[in-house]
Amino acid sequence: MSDVPVFDAGFIARFEELLAWRRDVRRFRPETLPEPLVTHLLRLAELSPSVGHSQPWRWLRVNDPVQRAAAQASFARCNAEALGDYDGAQAALYARLKLEGLREAPEQFAVFCDHSTRQGHGLGRRSMPEMLDYSVVAAITQFWLAARAHGVGVGWVSILEPGEIAAALRTPPDWKLIAWLCVGYPQEEHADPELVRAGWEAGKGRS
Amino acid sequence: MSDVPVFDAGFIARFEELLAWRRDVRRFRPETLPEPLVTHLLRLAELSPSVGHSQPWRWLRVNDPVQRAAAQASFARCNAEALGDYDGAQAALYARLKLEGLREAPEQFAVFCDHSTRQGHGLGRRSMPEMLDYSVVAAITQFWLAARAHGVGVGWVSILEPGEIAAALRTPPDWKLIAWLCVGYPQEEHADPELVRAGWEAGKGRS
Repeated sequence: MSDVPVFDAGFIARFEELLAWRRDVRRFRPETLPEPLVTHLLRLAELSPSVGHSQPWRWLRVNDPVQRAAAQASFARCNAEALGDYDGAQAALYARLKLEGLREAPEQFAVFCDHSTRQGHGLGRRSMPEMLDYSVVAAITQFWLAARAHGVGVGWVSILEPGEIAAALRTPPDWKLIAWLCVGYPQEEHADPELVRAGWEAGKGRS
Repeated sequence: MSDVPVFDAGFIARFEELLAWRRDVRRFRPETLPEPLVTHLLRLAELSPSVGHSQPWRWLRVNDPVQRAAAQASFARCNAEALGDYDGAQAALYARLKLEGLREAPEQFAVFCDHSTRQGHGLGRRSMPEMLDYSVVAAITQFWLAARAHGVGVGWVSILEPGEIAAALRTPPDWKLIAWLCVGYPQEEHADPELVRAGWEAGKGRS
């Protein structure tokens, strides 16, 4: 095991900067990513932990304008419904927030969990079957950090109706939508979340 | 934004080693962690993304021997039931696997998602309420990587009955168990998962 890496203080300090400067990005520059970088980031996500080594993540790269439009439409509908949950100043603030970059992000991925996978033979998820979904979340988290290390921003869009996305992408019935990811070079860099800068938490919205 | 970090090729190469050498650890040395390191790792987990900046993670550090024994008992029962799902050689292999370090790990955390939190005012989780749980998984993933950077191993134990853990820890009813983490310095370092080394996937178990 002579090649076991030891992470020195310099690396650790930079790694902590990576955690601090990872952001949910909603404002993207239009340039596409180099194709080898896309492949590389997806390969790094494959190094994630998964229950029973089941690797249940299924990444669909969405380039079809019709499929992207379906996600935009689902967001528009879900977001209008969400706005109805807030009143007064909180509603006005919600309406001003930019919560996604679905029209701008040059790269977009729908990430699913394959509930029909036999890989792993069910190990580790008998009493907590949600572990399969959690494994996909871990992979997305690693992808996110790896992307940021390469200067690439990721935004996780959850204001969507999973059934509408599944229909638009014609996914198998056993695939559960975990995330829609907008990916590209960010227009801005920040060490604090956009919602903090916007003062969202200070408002008095309903939970 | 002059202090925006740029991650150079040297950092990226080391970061990729971190992803490659992170493991689910089940064999721990007995030394406890320095207290400042525990505090620091938990603080780094706080930098994780969360839906609506809700930060719904609740980390309980479990030192009470009675509570630890409850987790061991829950594992023993759940693991015996899981063994019953396999036949023949796969069952024999399953019985030989070491799937947790609940007796050995010097530090242990039960990590919950607080479904009653009002932080975030519900933003981003109306159509996908599971985003709250996923936010906790992201925090655990970051904790895991940060720990490994500091030479500390983490093992995620999921072969547990969440209701038994909640009862033993007397958690609020709205807290959902996401993970039980065993934490400590690892006895061994590997770049490949233990289940791969054990040949688990090659078996013919039921899914």
